[in-house]
Amino acid sequence: MATVDLNADMGESFGSWQMGDDEALLGIVTSANVACGFHAGDAVVMGRTCTAAVEHGVCIGAHVSYRDLAGFGRNFVDVDPGRLRDEVIYQLSALRGVAEVHGAEVRYVKPHGALYNTIVHHEVQAKAVVEAISAVNAASSTDLALLGLPGALVLDLAEQQGIRTLREAFADRAYNPDGTLVPRRHEGSVLHNPDEVAERVVTLVTRGVVSAIDGTEVAIKADSVCVHGDTPGAVSMAAAVRDRLAAAGVELQAAA
Amino acid sequence: MATVDLNADMGESFGSWQMGDDEALLGIVTSANVACGFHAGDAVVMGRTCTAAVEHGVCIGAHVSYRDLAGFGRNFVDVDPGRLRDEVIYQLSALRGVAEVHGAEVRYVKPHGALYNTIVHHEVQAKAVVEAISAVNAASSTDLALLGLPGALVLDLAEQQGIRTLREAFADRAYNPDGTLVPRRHEGSVLHNPDEVAERVVTLVTRGVVSAIDGTEVAIKADSVCVHGDTPGAVSMAAAVRDRLAAAGVELQAAA
Amino acid sequence: MATVDLNADMGESFGSWQMGDDEALLGIVTSANVACGFHAGDAVVMGRTCTAAVEHGVCIGAHVSYRDLAGFGRNFVDVDPGRLRDEVIYQLSALRGVAEVHGAEVRYVKPHGALYNTIVHHEVQAKAVVEAISAVNAASSTDLALLGLPGALVLDLAEQQGIRTLREAFADRAYNPDGTLVPRRHEGSVLHNPDEVAERVVTLVTRGVVSAIDGTEVAIKADSVCVHGDTPGAVSMAAAVRDRLAAAGVELQAAA
Amino acid sequence: MATVDLNADMGESFGSWQMGDDEALLGIVTSANVACGFHAGDAVVMGRTCTAAVEHGVCIGAHVSYRDLAGFGRNFVDVDPGRLRDEVIYQLSALRGVAEVHGAEVRYVKPHGALYNTIVHHEVQAKAVVEAISAVNAASSTDLALLGLPGALVLDLAEQQGIRTLREAFADRAYNPDGTLVPRRHEGSVLHNPDEVAERVVTLVTRGVVSAIDGTEVAIKADSVCVHGDTPGAVSMAAAVRDRLAAAGVELQAAA
Repeated sequence: MATVDLNADMGESFGSWQMGDDEALLGIVTSANVACGFHAGDAVVMGRTCTAAVEHGVCIGAHVSYRDLAGFGRNFVDVDPGRLRDEVIYQLSALRGVAEVHGAEVRYVKPHGALYNTIVHHEVQAKAVVEAISAVNAASSTDLALLGLPGALVLDLAEQQGIRTLREAFADRAYNPDGTLVPRRHEGSVLHNPDEVAERVVTLVTRGVVSAIDGTEVAIKADSVCVHGDTPGAVSMAAAVRDRLAAAGVELQAAA
Repeated sequence: MATVDLNADMGESFGSWQMGDDEALLGIVTSANVACGFHAGDAVVMGRTCTAAVEHGVCIGAHVSYRDLAGFGRNFVDVDPGRLRDEVIYQLSALRGVAEVHGAEVRYVKPHGALYNTIVHHEVQAKAVVEAISAVNAASSTDLALLGLPGALVLDLAEQQGIRTLREAFADRAYNPDGTLVPRRHEGSVLHNPDEVAERVVTLVTRGVVSAIDGTEVAIKADSVCVHGDTPGAVSMAAAVRDRLAAAGVELQAAA
Repeated sequence: MATVDLNADMGESFGSWQMGDDEALLGIVTSANVACGFHAGDAVVMGRTCTAAVEHGVCIGAHVSYRDLAGFGRNFVDVDPGRLRDEVIYQLSALRGVAEVHGAEVRYVKPHGALYNTIVHHEVQAKAVVEAISAVNAASSTDLALLGLPGALVLDLAEQQGIRTLREAFADRAYNPDGTLVPRRHEGSVLHNPDEVAERVVTLVTRGVVSAIDGTEVAIKADSVCVHGDTPGAVSMAAAVRDRLAAAGVELQAAA
Repeated sequence: MATVDLNADMGESFGSWQMGDDEALLGIVTSANVACGFHAGDAVVMGRTCTAAVEHGVCIGAHVSYRDLAGFGRNFVDVDPGRLRDEVIYQLSALRGVAEVHGAEVRYVKPHGALYNTIVHHEVQAKAVVEAISAVNAASSTDLALLGLPGALVLDLAEQQGIRTLREAFADRAYNPDGTLVPRRHEGSVLHNPDEVAERVVTLVTRGVVSAIDGTEVAIKADSVCVHGDTPGAVSMAAAVRDRLAAAGVELQAAA
């Protein structure tokens, strides 16, 4: 039977500000990318999110970011790689400890926002992230995987260091014929129809292809499918994906 | 042979701002109270401080604080106890993970600044700090001790929860005849003469007494003696204390 | 004809986090308490809020706070009064400049959250806030008023310094027979029925009394009535108040 | 008689962390670039710096930055231009108000660190900074100048908008034969000999040339000369420059 992992960003509230409907999403996904306090999340939110993830049997990943609360980690920061490495270690450590207190375990790392996009190609920062994960894996008894974009430089570098890697597809994003994502600024780059999105995910999981923006089929190999949680209709779209997968006999299972 | 622990605050630089002469102090003390990013310290400073502590064979404690970089953790904050507990867990977790990466281990907790003073008497916040330490000790394989002021409510509460407790004396502070500290706003509350301070510490360690501000002797039982690092002459005073202790045949040994 | 001012907190979004429905509230109230970046609000939110206030002809006040984004300014901070004064000057200056760029003017100051409650009785902090307003009024060509709780120490101190003062009532809060607010932790302290709240405000404005929690009438003299914006049903309650006031022939007019 | 402006960064302490010897530098320079709280400086430091500048008769400029305390504004941030514009307006407004309270006036803007370097060439961010200054100048009765690197795109854009522009030379930096700065990573890029630096500044001011790194003379037209304050020997180097200029009959005078 085919299986797939559904991941979503979680724990992105901060202080008195709420974001997303984590409780609803945790009933749908198999992996939660939990913010670690640098772009979102605070100690209370992290604890609450870990507890809820445990209750729902959802796997926890560390959603590490540039240090940028005001910008929600969405802006590239040309930070010194040594500092970036140390900041990733700090975030991983904080979330691992919080998770442990709540009976959970961090299983993977998914860089957030601008950092995610940067280390697709930025060798110096990609190396810094890999060094951080390697350092944590080597020092502790854990075996954190790295979740990233297929083709990303950071995944190659991670594999060279013996880090488990996971590749993800995006449920609601249009693809170019070469398998890259259509940039958000282009028309049609984001899909909004839950049925269409659900159908694409099933095709992706069962046949390993998606229909590119020009109508051709493109092969996509994904260990996990990202669904979004902080946009209007996000939860119902995620639910449509889950239901359509179940109907197609695909089992949801955490990848990390 | 008598032994004593000397502790000092460390890792209180932040970003481009330097504070204290950690390298010099690490050559003198046996325990380092390492800032965790909430009142001072950042990921880079924490990593560097842990590495240096390992090199000097100095025991590491978590110097946890209110979330207050602008105020350096020196102002009481009437924070919700649930949030305080979670913030202490976050800080402990971050430092424990950073230490682990650098081959070190966090052995104790010393609350910083206003939090330190508040939980001498503030039951709700004292309980929150104790809950945080208990939670970390229970969830992991660690056995963090709590370092605090003799007579502090938080030490009693900690002992009730099975947490190891350590009591500290202050090398450069005047004592009242009842064993409490003379408040800083009073004249003569802080001692500045290295020889006098060193002599007092030797008397404290070897005879268990200090000369109170009125000249009477007062019994003080201390597991650790705090020396300061961020004031002019701090390092030479700490060195005087160490040298005078050595001359008196007292061995320096981490307490936690 | 009777007139009254309706004020509400605004501009409390931050970065990617939204709070409240400012656009809707600006169509209802006559005065907007605009966050200045210390408990909420950032430069973008402040600019947007000032622009929208100008479009709606709504008077702007500075919602100054302790420096506490993570706690939303809801926790007492025992900050040094000199620092508090300087931080209030900083916030007033920032908002005044942003408002000016958007063709608006800051007319009054309403301290936020824990600071608001603290300076009802805390003389040292109350003086610091008064000093800040006096300093800005004296140095510039402005004449900022202070909006606060009837009976607050800070209002007395402000009047002694020649600062205009405004007193506010709370539309949705129960009162004790002595005119003080029933603390939030007591049952019945917050009213949820829009019709009842609207009726109370009309009675308050036209007859100068409210029905206290024990059923007796208590005289309340208010220059402004605070309506809330960040709770479920807040906008419809505010609209009910406005409509009921209009039906009673009360004109809405900014007080500052 | 030849005149020149000497400028230096000031007010870069933050909370309990000190940086630079502002008091000494204020006795030497004619213009102070005052941090506004985004890379350094806080409300207390800003007030103290403005007061000291007034006492020394030193002209005040706004040292605006990316929002980046942890990185001291030294890292490029790919921030949205609308946000950058608003953040510059916020910083200018805050410092202008603080200065006004202390009897001072902000006369010019000098972007800090990575922002300074970025808007030499980055059109989108350069436009954002220019828009901010234009907006403040248009809305208020001020006439802020922009201080920048000769040849910087931001200066051209500023002039097109009618903003006064000032060009600066660097006392302790080596120049290429084409008048650009030798990058810091190259050997010999920073000069350390106070006498040599002082002599270069006199030649620059009186003859309009500096000796480039290859020994050729290059023409440099500078309205202001930047001296540094936060490095060892900074104050004595600045003093050497001032004294040598005085001996050469050059008058120090603020440019803005």
